Amino acid sequence: MQLPRAIDNLIKALGRLPGIGPKTASRLAFYLLNVPEAVAGELALAIGNVKKNTKVCRICFGVSETEVCGVCGDSRRNQRIICVVERMVDVLALENVGGYVGVYHVLGGVINPLEHVGPEDLKIGELILRITKITNSNNQLENDQNIEIILATNPTMEGEATALYIKKQVESLPNIKVTRIGSGLPMGGDLEYADLATLAHAMAGRQVM
Amino acid sequence: MQLPRAIDNLIKALGRLPGIGPKTASRLAFYLLNVPEAVAGELALAIGNVKKNTKVCRICFGVSETEVCGVCGDSRRNQRIICVVERMVDVLALENVGGYVGVYHVLGGVINPLEHVGPEDLKIGELILRITKITNSNNQLENDQNIEIILATNPTMEGEATALYIKKQVESLPNIKVTRIGSGLPMGGDLEYADLATLAHAMAGRQVM
Repeated sequence: MQLPRAIDNLIKALGRLPGIGPKTASRLAFYLLNVPEAVAGELALAIGNVKKNTKVCRICFGVSETEVCGVCGDSRRNQRIICVVERMVDVLALENVGGYVGVYHVLGGVINPLEHVGPEDLKIGELILRITKITNSNNQLENDQNIEIILATNPTMEGEATALYIKKQVESLPNIKVTRIGSGLPMGGDLEYADLATLAHAMAGRQVM
Repeated sequence: MQLPRAIDNLIKALGRLPGIGPKTASRLAFYLLNVPEAVAGELALAIGNVKKNTKVCRICFGVSETEVCGVCGDSRRNQRIICVVERMVDVLALENVGGYVGVYHVLGGVINPLEHVGPEDLKIGELILRITKITNSNNQLENDQNIEIILATNPTMEGEATALYIKKQVESLPNIKVTRIGSGLPMGGDLEYADLATLAHAMAGRQVM
């Protein structure tokens, strides 16, 4: 049975989205076929506009509506605590938790030789430049304080390698303190069902109560 | 933290799709933000075009590129076996199985009083008209043959009620045989874990081997 080309095209386009298999793509396509024109039009417009109407923050490389994003432009945020993350979604996840007073630096991915992503493809050079700028600023009083770089890449093989690489690059800079986000059993997790790597990390990362 | 409006709009629009929660919507939105313009544009275009470039088959009410769909227009298909389904996706599912020689009739939903969907909102009147037309056709030879109406609405409460309603409407027409698709344990299923309703149906629907 031959489906109309317009539906076939839509199913194919939806199927390219991450986590959307052929069945879901077909279900979504038929849903969009049946909704009022305005609803489908709104979605089409939103997709078309998302790139046009967003900028990349020139300080942290997160997405923003303005040249400098809301976090980097917030004077109440401590610009000397920089949390380095892989992607913008990680910033959102951390901001949702709330309570973090520092700023972010979005790498745009992780070092991944298999996918031909090297350090030069990420915003690592920009991070070093950013740190140097803070150190070279004229504020003598502040310059005695440490700059903390929190490496918050994911606890995957690539994320760990990227964190290690950045640590080596920045640790020699003056007044730098490099930290790594905690890794171990998730809250509500179960020792019995945890994988070996997680358990090993949880043991190695034990802390005094 | 305030997300750029363009991303917020896209997350909201994606979140309205069935089965897409806020987390998935946000993941998809950031994915679309990062893909090349052409890929996002293609999806936006496909969504915009899907309604414009499809028609509803005037015989079976399935989606089609032409006035009459490929199945209804196929002379090798037996026009006297009509499989009544809820939605176009059901036609696709059955066509994927292959081997069915009859045609379809897409109701456009099921009778659902809670959602204010009555028989008049479905293509039931059109089904009766369609049957009458076949019966009144001039082909005397064929008119002695039965017309089979296979009720293939889903085995849910609404689907069963709709099947029963259609049965009552059409069974008095001349030379009509009304059947219902089989219901029972799914292939690979397990008696031990089947729910009571399924088991009861499986027992009641037992067949001679």
